[in-house]
Amino acid sequence: MGKVFVELSVSLDGFVAGPNPSLEHPLGEGGELLHEWAMGLEAFRERHGMSGGEQNPDSEIVAESLAGTGAVVMGRRMFSGGEGPWEDDPNADAWWGDDPPFRVPVFVVTHHPRKPVEKQGGTTFTFVTEGVEAAVERARAAAGSANIQIAGGASVGQQALRAGLVDELQMHLVPVLLGEGTRLLEGLSAGDAHLERVRVVDSRAVTHLWYRIVR
Amino acid sequence: MGKVFVELSVSLDGFVAGPNPSLEHPLGEGGELLHEWAMGLEAFRERHGMSGGEQNPDSEIVAESLAGTGAVVMGRRMFSGGEGPWEDDPNADAWWGDDPPFRVPVFVVTHHPRKPVEKQGGTTFTFVTEGVEAAVERARAAAGSANIQIAGGASVGQQALRAGLVDELQMHLVPVLLGEGTRLLEGLSAGDAHLERVRVVDSRAVTHLWYRIVR
Repeated sequence: MGKVFVELSVSLDGFVAGPNPSLEHPLGEGGELLHEWAMGLEAFRERHGMSGGEQNPDSEIVAESLAGTGAVVMGRRMFSGGEGPWEDDPNADAWWGDDPPFRVPVFVVTHHPRKPVEKQGGTTFTFVTEGVEAAVERARAAAGSANIQIAGGASVGQQALRAGLVDELQMHLVPVLLGEGTRLLEGLSAGDAHLERVRVVDSRAVTHLWYRIVR
Repeated sequence: MGKVFVELSVSLDGFVAGPNPSLEHPLGEGGELLHEWAMGLEAFRERHGMSGGEQNPDSEIVAESLAGTGAVVMGRRMFSGGEGPWEDDPNADAWWGDDPPFRVPVFVVTHHPRKPVEKQGGTTFTFVTEGVEAAVERARAAAGSANIQIAGGASVGQQALRAGLVDELQMHLVPVLLGEGTRLLEGLSAGDAHLERVRVVDSRAVTHLWYRIVR
């Protein structure tokens, strides 16, 4: 059985998104700084249908994570790209385009029921209205022996951590300060998760930290 | 000229102290978890007048930091060990004992003027009422070519970061969650400090992160 992991880029002051998310800044103001490290990597570009890019330890880590992932769980806002018009238009699914980079079944935690959407390249979006636990269960069934990535946002990650659904936390620690925004580890205490360091990989741009969650 | 560095143990959720600091829990409830990694190390024990202890990469890092430090800056609360009776008793300086582990001049940022205190082993406490910038200036003069450690608490560290006095941030990232307490990087934004990763050293217990602050 695969493991359930939360994977997020985090600023040194603990934010996974900046303040005031919008369609223009889906990760909040300054939030794009958290993901700059990944943009130029070969593994990232390949997933987004582009050739070329850097081959380095960061790219290997992205490739490793993508290769091991059999299903993805995300929140409604990550699906729709911020505070978009999606809730008024139940057929809108334009944010990730026709060929989204996931290439596995994606389970979207939402209050708004809708029919599944099948995209090119192996990505399907299925909408789960019974909460994060049900979404992880569906993802587990879809992933088989592969891993289940809880991709974000912070709210779904926190819900999964609090519910004891997460086996591993993967943080890409980025040396920037955002000052305000949304934290991943907010309102969680030692009782919610006991952590054990698994692996640390360091590059010029970012420090990758893996923690096992021991129950 | 030596560098000015802030060195603090930080929980994975960004806290340098737990909630409700008291004489019993000077680092707040749960705060002692942040320092467990250091307690058994040879370099730590030696500084505290004890023999034995573990020799490992963590101990080397502690030894390296201590050896390079020529003066220390700290806040009043760190000097007096939490919410103690110190402000009512201007002669009290019992918290760190007769033989404190600093063994260099220590400059305490406080609103309460008092005479310097000389302890055994090379530690002197000098009280600076003109703010953190003045304390760093005095520490710089005392340290000569050695480094100046801003030892804590979070408030003095933040003041120094905001005032542009800090050359390097050294975080010992501890895999625990405190849930609440005092954060080092609170209310600081990209404008206050631009960070460059210098070095990462990883051990079973803790991840040591060094960032240069570029102005």
